[in-house]
Formats: sequence, C-alpha cells, structure tokens
Amino acid sequence: MSYVLNDAASFADDSADGFVAAHRNLVRRVRGGVARAGATAPGQVAVVIGGGSGHYPAFAGLVGPGIAHGAAMGNVFASPSAQQVVSVARAAASDAGVLLAYGNYAGDALNFDQAQDQLRAEGIPCQTVRVTDDICSAPPAEQEKRRGIAGDLVVFRAAGWAAEQGFDLESVTALAARANERTRSIGVAFSGCTLPGTAEPLFTVPPGMMAVGMGIHGEPGIETVSMATASGLAGLLTDRLLAERPETADGAGRIGVIVNGLGSVKSEELFLLYGAIVPLMEKAGLTIVDPEVGEYATSFEMAGLSLTVVWLDDELEQAWRSPAYTPAYRKGAVDISATAPAVAPDETASEVAAMAASSEEAAAAGAQVLKAIDAIKNVIDREADELGRLDAIAGDGDHGIGMQRGARAAAQAAAAASAAGAGAGTVLVLAGDAWADKAGGTSGALWGLALRTMGQQIGDDDAPAPATVAQAVTAAREAVQRTGKAEIGDKTLVDALVPFAERLTALTSEGRGLAQAWTEAAQTATAAAAGTADLLPRLGRARPHMEKSLGTPDPGAVSFALAVTAVGAVLDAYDLKEN
Amino acid sequence: MSYVLNDAASFADDSADGFVAAHRNLVRRVRGGVARAGATAPGQVAVVIGGGSGHYPAFAGLVGPGIAHGAAMGNVFASPSAQQVVSVARAAASDAGVLLAYGNYAGDALNFDQAQDQLRAEGIPCQTVRVTDDICSAPPAEQEKRRGIAGDLVVFRAAGWAAEQGFDLESVTALAARANERTRSIGVAFSGCTLPGTAEPLFTVPPGMMAVGMGIHGEPGIETVSMATASGLAGLLTDRLLAERPETADGAGRIGVIVNGLGSVKSEELFLLYGAIVPLMEKAGLTIVDPEVGEYATSFEMAGLSLTVVWLDDELEQAWRSPAYTPAYRKGAVDISATAPAVAPDETASEVAAMAASSEEAAAAGAQVLKAIDAIKNVIDREADELGRLDAIAGDGDHGIGMQRGARAAAQAAAAASAAGAGAGTVLVLAGDAWADKAGGTSGALWGLALRTMGQQIGDDDAPAPATVAQAVTAAREAVQRTGKAEIGDKTLVDALVPFAERLTALTSEGRGLAQAWTEAAQTATAAAAGTADLLPRLGRARPHMEKSLGTPDPGAVSFALAVTAVGAVLDAYDLKEN
Repeated sequence: MSYVLNDAASFADDSADGFVAAHRNLVRRVRGGVARAGATAPGQVAVVIGGGSGHYPAFAGLVGPGIAHGAAMGNVFASPSAQQVVSVARAAASDAGVLLAYGNYAGDALNFDQAQDQLRAEGIPCQTVRVTDDICSAPPAEQEKRRGIAGDLVVFRAAGWAAEQGFDLESVTALAARANERTRSIGVAFSGCTLPGTAEPLFTVPPGMMAVGMGIHGEPGIETVSMATASGLAGLLTDRLLAERPETADGAGRIGVIVNGLGSVKSEELFLLYGAIVPLMEKAGLTIVDPEVGEYATSFEMAGLSLTVVWLDDELEQAWRSPAYTPAYRKGAVDISATAPAVAPDETASEVAAMAASSEEAAAAGAQVLKAIDAIKNVIDREADELGRLDAIAGDGDHGIGMQRGARAAAQAAAAASAAGAGAGTVLVLAGDAWADKAGGTSGALWGLALRTMGQQIGDDDAPAPATVAQAVTAAREAVQRTGKAEIGDKTLVDALVPFAERLTALTSEGRGLAQAWTEAAQTATAAAAGTADLLPRLGRARPHMEKSLGTPDPGAVSFALAVTAVGAVLDAYDLKEN
Repeated sequence: MSYVLNDAASFADDSADGFVAAHRNLVRRVRGGVARAGATAPGQVAVVIGGGSGHYPAFAGLVGPGIAHGAAMGNVFASPSAQQVVSVARAAASDAGVLLAYGNYAGDALNFDQAQDQLRAEGIPCQTVRVTDDICSAPPAEQEKRRGIAGDLVVFRAAGWAAEQGFDLESVTALAARANERTRSIGVAFSGCTLPGTAEPLFTVPPGMMAVGMGIHGEPGIETVSMATASGLAGLLTDRLLAERPETADGAGRIGVIVNGLGSVKSEELFLLYGAIVPLMEKAGLTIVDPEVGEYATSFEMAGLSLTVVWLDDELEQAWRSPAYTPAYRKGAVDISATAPAVAPDETASEVAAMAASSEEAAAAGAQVLKAIDAIKNVIDREADELGRLDAIAGDGDHGIGMQRGARAAAQAAAAASAAGAGAGTVLVLAGDAWADKAGGTSGALWGLALRTMGQQIGDDDAPAPATVAQAVTAAREAVQRTGKAEIGDKTLVDALVPFAERLTALTSEGRGLAQAWTEAAQTATAAAAGTADLLPRLGRARPHMEKSLGTPDPGAVSFALAVTAVGAVLDAYDLKEN
C-alpha cells in the first residue's frame, strides 16, 4: 500500500514533481515526462524511454549521460499517451532522430507507435525497439509477444552507449535490438502490490507459494509452486534462463547479470541470491561481467524478484561496462560538469499552449467545440458511477473513473484554448491530447486519438461545414479502428462509433443540417450500444471471458452513445440560435 | 519477511558473501566485515563504520572512496563483536589511525568501545564518534543518549571527506563530531519487519496509524497517531526538526536533507514527500543543498521513513557535496582507476589463525583448555532449551540459542587452535573471539571478553599454576563488570561470576589444587545462580520490569554455573590423570 499520499488521482504527477525537485541538476521537467537537464548534442541520437509510473527507477530514474535522453511518464501502471511521448521526444531530440525503447505492453505499444507516426510526420526520424526479455510471458516461437521487465536496463544501456558514441539512428537501433535479442529474464512473485489510494492488493499469491513468471502487474506466469530455499530458487531461475540461451550467442561465455528486486525483497536477500547464482553460472562455463544487484524495475512494494542474463559480444560488453550517471544508476567516472549546457525547464510542462485562430468565425467554432466537450464532461460526470458498475461486470470497473478523468481534462484544455481564441481544430487537438494524457488506459488513448484526428481534419480556418464534420468523424473512426484493432462485435466503443459515423455521413451527404444529422446519428449509436448485449452471439465471435457479460451492454459503447447524444443537444441549441 | 533464505543462522554471512561477490572491484572481505578493495593511503585516517546487518546500504554499502574505509558487519540487528571491529580496523588502517563511527546503540557502544581499547593497546591511534541524530529517542538535554538513524550518512560523509583531505585523526574526529552535533532526524513507522527465518513481525503498528519516532528495531517513539496526508506528514516532520535547530547553527541558512525509506515505502512516495517538504523549508528561509531521497539506512521490509536535516557550515557543505563512490552511494566524478592498488582479499577472513606454543607443556595446557571448552559446549547444547525457557520468563527467550551459537563456535576455534599446537592463552583468546563473533548480543560479548581476558593473563609459556588461573578469572570478572556495568543483584551472570572468582581466589591462595578449588567454586556459583531468585528483594533494587521474574533464577547466571561445573569435571579428570 502507499503510506505517502495526498490525492490518488495526482499521485504520479506529485511524485514526478518531487523527483525533478530532488534531481534538478540532472533532469528537467517537460510536458509528458522528463528530459536530461542538458541539451542533446547535435548529431547525437536521442534515446527516449518510458512507461507507467510505479516502477522506479524505471523510467525517469534512468535519464542521464550513458542511458536515456528523456522518459515519458504515464500514470500509475498506465502507458504514457502518444502526445506525452511526442512531447518528451521533441524536447530531447537534436537533429539525429529518436529511438523509442520501452517494455512490450499493449498500451505502451499503442501509444508509442502513434507517437512514432506523429514524429515521422513532423520530420523527426524515429525508430522503435520493444524490450521482450520475460521468457515466461510467451513461448520462444512467439518471442515478439513477450513482456519487458528488468531487461529494459540492458537495452537502454546499449542504446545510450551507442548514442553517446555518435552512432547514427540505424546503428543505435540495431545495437539496441541486438541487446534485446540476447537478453532473457525470469521473475518470481511472492505477493502483490497495493496501488496508491486503494485498499486491496492488485493481485495476490497464496502464502508460502511463489508464482513463477508472474508479471509485475499480476499477469499470469507459468506455475505457482512452494517457496524454495535460496539455493533452490537460484537453481530454478538459472536453469530456465540458460535453457533459452539465444542461438546468436554461440560460443559467448561472457554474460551480464541483473538480480532485480521488485520492491519488498530487500538488498540483503538479493545479495544472498546472487551469491547462490555465481557458482551455477561458473559451472555452466559462463563468466559474469559487472553484475547488477538491486532495484532496476520495481512494482511498488510487490514482493518479487527477477534474474536477467545478457549474452555479451564485444560491442555489447563495451556498452554494458560503460560509464553512466543518472538519478538512480551511476557507474564509472562521468564528468558531470563536462556535459551539455543546461536547458531551461519547460515552464509550460503541465500546461497547454494554444494559438489564436485566424478569424472570428473560426474562434466562434472553437467556442462551440468547447461547449460540446463541456457537454460530454457533464454527462460523463453524471453517469460515471453507472459506467463503473457496467464495467465491473466483465472488466475492472474503472471505465467510469477513466472517462471522467479524461473528459474533465479535455474540458479544461478546451476552455484554455478557446479562451486564447483558438479555432475548432486546435481546441479539439488540445482537448484530445489532454484526454489521453489524463485518462490512461486504452479508452483514454482512443478517445484522445479520435478528438485529435477530428481536430486535424477540421482545421482552424473557419466554421466547418456539416460534410467536413462527417469526414472528420469518419477519419477518427478509421484511426480508432486502425490503432485499437477492434471490429464491430468486439464489445468496444467501435460498436457504437461505426454506425454513428456511417449514419452521420449518409445524412450530411443528403444535405441535412449538422444538428439534425448529428442527433439522428446519436440515436443510431444509442441503439447500437444497447444492442451490444446481443451482438456477440449473433456474430458467433463470443470469447470465453466475455460469456459473463453477454447480456450486458459494453460500457465503452454506452459512454460513446451518451457523449454524442449530449453533443447533439448542444448542436441543436447552436442551430436554433445561429440559423 | 524474508523470501530468499537458506539458513536463518547464516543469513547475514551468506548475504555478506553475495554482497562482496557483486562488488569485488570496490570491497574485499576481511574477518568481521569488509574493507575497501584498495589499501588506505599512508597518512590517511581510516574511517571504520559498522553495526548490525539488515540496514543496507548501512553499513557495508557505504565503504569506498569518499565515505568509509571499512565496515564491521554484525549479525542480523546485532552489533558486531569487538574482535570484528578490531579486525576490520586493522585491515583498513594505515599509519594515521582509525576513527570509529556508528549509530549509538548499547550493544554497538559496548563492542566498539572494547575495540577502541584494544586498538589503542596495539598502538593504533583510535577515536570514536557516535551518531545521535534521532530526536525522538531522548530529550534535547540528553542528546548523547539519542540513537543513530539515517544521520549516519551525514557523519560518515564528513569523516570520509576529512580523511580524504589528509586531515589528522583529531581533525577528522572533530569534523565528524560537528556533523553529528548539527544533524537531526525524525522517523515514522507504519509497520514492522519480520526477520529472516521468523514468522511473526518483530513489532507492529496498528493499521491506519503511524508511530512517530519509533526506532528501526521497534524502540518506543513519542506517540502513535492517525496516518496523515503527505502534506500533513511533511509538516509534522519539518516542524519538529526545525524546532531543534542546533544552537551552533545560528544564521546558517543552508541545509542538507535526507528523505530515507526504511524498506517498503517506495521511491515514488519518498519523492512525493520530498516535493511537499521543499516549500516548507523555503518558507523557513532555508536553502536545500544536494538533497538525498532514497534508501540510506533500512530495516528490511519495514514500512517507515525518516527526514534528516544537517545545518551546514562551509566545511560541512564541502563534505556534503563532495564526490563518493561506494557500492550503494555514488556522487560526482570519482576516477576509480586512480584509487589505491588492490589488496588481496583476506583468504582467512572467516577462519582463525593460530600460532604454535613454545613448549610441549604449553601445548598440553592448550589441549586441556580445549577439553574445558568442549565441556561447556556439551552442557550448553544439552541445556539450551531449558535456558531458553528460563529466559522467556523475563526476556526474549534467546539466551539458550545465543549461548549455543557462541559455545559451538568457541569449541570449533579452540579445536583448530589446539590442533595447530597453540598454548592455553591462544586457545582461550581465539575461542573467546569466536564466541563473541557468533553469539551476538550482550552475553556473547561478555563471554567472549571473559575468555579473551583469561587467555591474555594466562599466556602461552607453560602450564599455568592454580593461582595464575584464579588471577585470570578475576581479571575476566573485572573486565566483564567494567564493560557490562552490572553489579551483583542485577540478575546477570555477574551474580554467579563474582562469588565464583572470589571463592576460587580464596581456595587457591590456601594452596588447593586447581581441580578441587575450581569444583568448590563452581558449587558456590551454582548456589548463587539458584539464589538469584531471592537477590533482588534482599538488595532492595527490584525494578518494575523484573517483578515478573522475581522468583526465577537468571538464565545468564545459571548458564555460567552450568559451564564452570562442567569445566570442573574436566579438571578433576585431568588432575586424577596428571597428578
């Protein structure tokens, strides 16, 4: 559990502020996370890492000479939004491009991929390496599906060293990818963690047992067995890792080793375990180079640990042994005073910048978008509890809270943008980014993406025509489906979004006014959301874990229908007043 | 609780071995703890720190350039023995003497003081600074009685920096003492820790409450109050610390700050708390210099934290900001390759060296001492459970186990020494040192001291005369009383030791043989031990916490009586055979 807390909603932000205050000489706060205090040298690739909060020193604690140039910091156990990643990457990048490196989790992959698209669209060269070291999270044949755990450090160190050497983006990416290919980890969990502001642990392990391969968020592992002695545990971890010696590592007898504590397994125990591992590695003919024993990727006060091995080659060994100086990881001699000149911290780090629209008409359209987003916020506020109850039937019950966080942040950002005179497009983009930043989770990312896409389509030039709005909704629908990979019948907001977009397009192409077309399309969306209860059996795509909820509307579809209905009412009023 | 464990009895040793294996480039194992891998430069004072295990990075994690030259490592939550401290100090010292610096706990003070006496007797200049930063452990007027917690780091850093500057012993001591005078800490506990191999927590805090000022081993604090918000906690800690601004710090507006986690309060929470402390310090007109937020003195997985402030002056600020490079604490640029040449690890680290005696007669006397110590081991093994039961009535029930650990280790060391042909004196000294090393606790320290003192008195020259043995016992009695500060009637082994020594002296001065005199004196000791049940009321010195045990013999006196009786039987057999 957490003992130091003001407000669970702001825990990650409050903690990040304190982190930056404690390490002002090394890092600066930028929107979405932190970057090194000094600017990245011209010609040097920027290594941008990131992930959810609650894993310190991953990720912000690893920003500094020798490792990363910036870290995007998501909410507790939630991926940073695409915009957070983009913002950190922009702050960290010089002219040589950006490598995005992060642990392979669905939410992170979704948001970092979006960020990569956006960075490339902005002309910033960008590549990605996902860390997949956890051998228990997928079989060897599906290595690319594996999760990333403490092996993050190996990959980040390789990338950071290569960048420091002045390698180009392609070469930095290649070395980081090779580090990942040659890195394997295995973890055990003894007990779960309790998130800030909650009373119950996120997951549990039966007393006296250990869950081999359980993920750091409670993801299922291989098996739950009785707790072993330290020697037994060392044998189990070592045997399983060495059985997965990578094919590329033929003949390689030199390895880097990480014994990583998740939170409540303390240094004394980690050292004891390391002492038991050394003779096993020696027996296997392996030479350990610069072992790391401590906390490198944690999970609050979770009791668990992991063993990581990287099979070194000459270049990887150079990277593994190289100096580094970050808030949490320091090795060898680094002349801090010789690093790049400091960059002033981004004072607008947690704010949003808006530009004035080009015309009064456009500014009026921006004000209208603000009203629409306010309406969404109000209806979500009103129905948040009910959405939570719906979600608790098949999910984790946080849909209402997440939507509420997102809609509130979006309304705030929209108000600030509109007050600055921004047009409809800018108001939508900034509202979408704020939504994604604050909501967390997949629905937050998709709502943020939808609003941003609409904003980009509509632009700031003047008041948009009904057909332009319908095209924008269709573009948003496409982006959501492309990114979320959901089809009708998967019980997501797509079940309501698709018929809404189709109906809106049909009605506007018939020449209807925006308010009327929108309101009718919203009715279609509501019917579809209510009908999600029956969709699955009809489409024959029911999945076992969904059976429980077959008779229940999907909360994502319902919240979408509520939102567009509320917007319809605002447009009606607008139409009545303006036309 | 501990999740990684082979054998609770060897936990601290196993962990220390793994620690050294993980940090071979920085530290070497020496008997009793660790020293820097490189030799201390000629003319440089050696800073030797230490304490019980279970507080990592205190103490071994702080050995390296910029901080300590060596650390004596006691058992779990138990002081190192005097011999451990001496051994580490010998390994770390060059020609400029040794500063002993450690947290002010009774067991540590007893053993480090003994070590200081011994080092001085060996001609090694030695001074001591005890860390007393915990403001909740005694009122301001009794500052010298306060415990040492995370303020250790401030004092160790000051001492390490001064040593590195080439200051002489007096000046190093003076700066460390000034650092201690200007350092204040306050801690809160939310839950206790469970020691390796035990099932129940060592102490507890009621759920939802926090114990203000509770010590890291569960020592009582000031009060137990409801858990506060992070802001409330920051206010409470800051207010209490600033109220104790030291008088010497007039006008000093610059402070060093440590936010220390005890184990289960994680980095994210510590950063959050630090963020809440910054504005409070600013409001008080104080400027924070180089804050430290993390784990510096822990207590296994205990949930708790502390705030430390040191009021800096120019010299202390230089020390606080200076570079350092140890396993757990790294700051600034230290050129590791430029440090002193490596010293080969002490291969006899966990063994005992013995020299052959000068004559056959002396060697025979050494063999006889071995028999006596074997007899003690056997009787303690037989009665360990009963001693534990006796101890559980008024104490913590570990007297039997502690005596067993000590007597077994003593017998092993005596056997090795005698096999190498050592005389009586050497066998006794090495047996005593082994006893103190392994037994832990006050009784271990006193038994070790008694045997060592006897050995030094008796020497290795030949078979000792009865009067010499009686003088040696008297010297041991004096040393035990001087060190343990116990009088007859305090219900300790002194209750049996004093009458034993007096009777032995009286009988040998009358010309009795050793066996007869010893056996009669042992009878006196047994009567006294049995009589401890009645001593207290008779002497009118009963203390409230002893009332429960008024009718019970003291386990320390009983085990002493058992031991000397067993030795008497061996001497009888010896006399019968030899005379």
